[in-house]
Amino acid sequence: MALRITKNQAATMSPEAVKYLAALPHPWIPGFLLPTLTGPRRIPRFRKAFQAGEDVIEEALIARYSLTLEKTTIKEVPVLIIRPKIITPGNEHALLLNIHGGGFVMGTARERTALLMAAEIGITVYSIDYTLAPEAKYPLALNQCLAVYEELVTHFDPKQVVGTSSSSGGALMLAVVLKAHTLHLPMIKALGMFTPAGEISGVGDSAVSNNRRDVQSADMALAIVRQNYVGEMNPRDPGISPLNDTFDTDFPPTMITTGTRDIMLSNAVRLFWKLKEINVPVELLVSEGMWHGFNWEPDLPEAMRTRKIVVDFLNSQIRTARREESMR
Amino acid sequence: MALRITKNQAATMSPEAVKYLAALPHPWIPGFLLPTLTGPRRIPRFRKAFQAGEDVIEEALIARYSLTLEKTTIKEVPVLIIRPKIITPGNEHALLLNIHGGGFVMGTARERTALLMAAEIGITVYSIDYTLAPEAKYPLALNQCLAVYEELVTHFDPKQVVGTSSSSGGALMLAVVLKAHTLHLPMIKALGMFTPAGEISGVGDSAVSNNRRDVQSADMALAIVRQNYVGEMNPRDPGISPLNDTFDTDFPPTMITTGTRDIMLSNAVRLFWKLKEINVPVELLVSEGMWHGFNWEPDLPEAMRTRKIVVDFLNSQIRTARREESMR
Repeated sequence: MALRITKNQAATMSPEAVKYLAALPHPWIPGFLLPTLTGPRRIPRFRKAFQAGEDVIEEALIARYSLTLEKTTIKEVPVLIIRPKIITPGNEHALLLNIHGGGFVMGTARERTALLMAAEIGITVYSIDYTLAPEAKYPLALNQCLAVYEELVTHFDPKQVVGTSSSSGGALMLAVVLKAHTLHLPMIKALGMFTPAGEISGVGDSAVSNNRRDVQSADMALAIVRQNYVGEMNPRDPGISPLNDTFDTDFPPTMITTGTRDIMLSNAVRLFWKLKEINVPVELLVSEGMWHGFNWEPDLPEAMRTRKIVVDFLNSQIRTARREESMR
Repeated sequence: MALRITKNQAATMSPEAVKYLAALPHPWIPGFLLPTLTGPRRIPRFRKAFQAGEDVIEEALIARYSLTLEKTTIKEVPVLIIRPKIITPGNEHALLLNIHGGGFVMGTARERTALLMAAEIGITVYSIDYTLAPEAKYPLALNQCLAVYEELVTHFDPKQVVGTSSSSGGALMLAVVLKAHTLHLPMIKALGMFTPAGEISGVGDSAVSNNRRDVQSADMALAIVRQNYVGEMNPRDPGISPLNDTFDTDFPPTMITTGTRDIMLSNAVRLFWKLKEINVPVELLVSEGMWHGFNWEPDLPEAMRTRKIVVDFLNSQIRTARREESMR
């Protein structure tokens, strides 16, 4: 069963996007089967199937952009350093901290977004290989990401550090930055949030309205997260769903991406208003007909257009920081 | 039959918004009945019922804000001049051109948005009472709005003129500004586009996905417009659906508002990208759970928050123009 795309819907999307959605299998799983299908015993199989597909794409991107990868550990947390062939002039002392997506249960530090950002921004990327669930439940991944954040802002100029994250990585990124604020750690310069999961409890308009319109089901994603990562915690806890936390005015300038079909559209919208209301510079990019994580398709026109704006934004933030520095 | 709002959807909306939606009758009309129900013979009845409700609200707003109304004609087109009790300092020589909504078949120059903008910006509003359909089909309303635009930018400083529009008024506003560009008329300083109808052919994701989620049905709105306004024209014609036109870089800086439930969400999103791609300053405000035209609810928290940003934007654009002028 494929997603239903009417002629009127196809008319405002790229032909590539229409083709992508039409080719995608989109099985519908009845709610009562979800607990069995999304429990810890199933995760290794999901992870393996997902990674087999990703490996091919990731290796192609590494070759296409001549990226250099180096494994390291920071405060005992595995981190992948990704270096582009050419560092964009001005980014020599800058770095990008990336927290990958995958619903807390899959994905690796080598995810497409980390690779694409290294190449497209022309910057050294530090991508965190936090421990996945169900092996580690909340809050281990958060603590690992915070430890890496602290090391990076201590050893590098925080104003030359920018961050990106995708989906569930966005929940970690928001929680890390908010925790860093309460710990009086320096704020990094700017954030690019790709279809962020700021709330993983299921509240919000789009988790309902886009549940069966997105390339992945909200019900299934939420069931996976709940069974494997959240555990006995309240899924609305600010450490898990940081949209329920208090944001402060020193939060970094942020670019948010989503699409009209994204199960996380409401998360993106709510994050926008959280920041807007306290006058943090924030921009929301909503793409017509686009789904959760569309932005990491390397050659999809809507994805390229979106990434270009995020890339320009992060580059310009790094340059602003350097100008401010040299004026002191 | 009311709109279905789940607990998870209600959790991220204001209690006022949830109450509003729950109280709203939301009859579903089968498609085959639409042509009969939306034809020219039915319009007087729709218009009367709509205006009876609006009159009460409009008169309350006029009283609440002590607004002064004056009817005039510009180039034989009826225009309503709305003056606030207090002009915001700096807006003495500024004016706001408003094109009202109502699907081309109803609504008047005294619409809520015109009244609210006069009071909340503290500016003199010129609101156009263009001839409605089916009495006048396309392009009479467009020509009338263009004639008023031309007179205003000729007799006033165009950099002290800003524009607002709602829904179908947005289609007129976009078409007017684009026509003004081809006629080498001056561009006005900035635009506030409330849930704009940039395309009224039915193409786009949200006309399908929000068809039965919004407070009004996309099918019904499109049928009304097609039968009464578009006539024998192609509804994708740029004069009717200006999102299909070419935009140029001198297009005024624009603030766009919409909601996740808006049947016109995709129109707002597509307008954003049209302007973004040619580097016109543009911002998109998407409100969680909000519907088509939510912004004109005087006391709805989400609407007040949205209007405040549009008001601040238009005020700041007028001030920027004055600073630029004084620096010459």
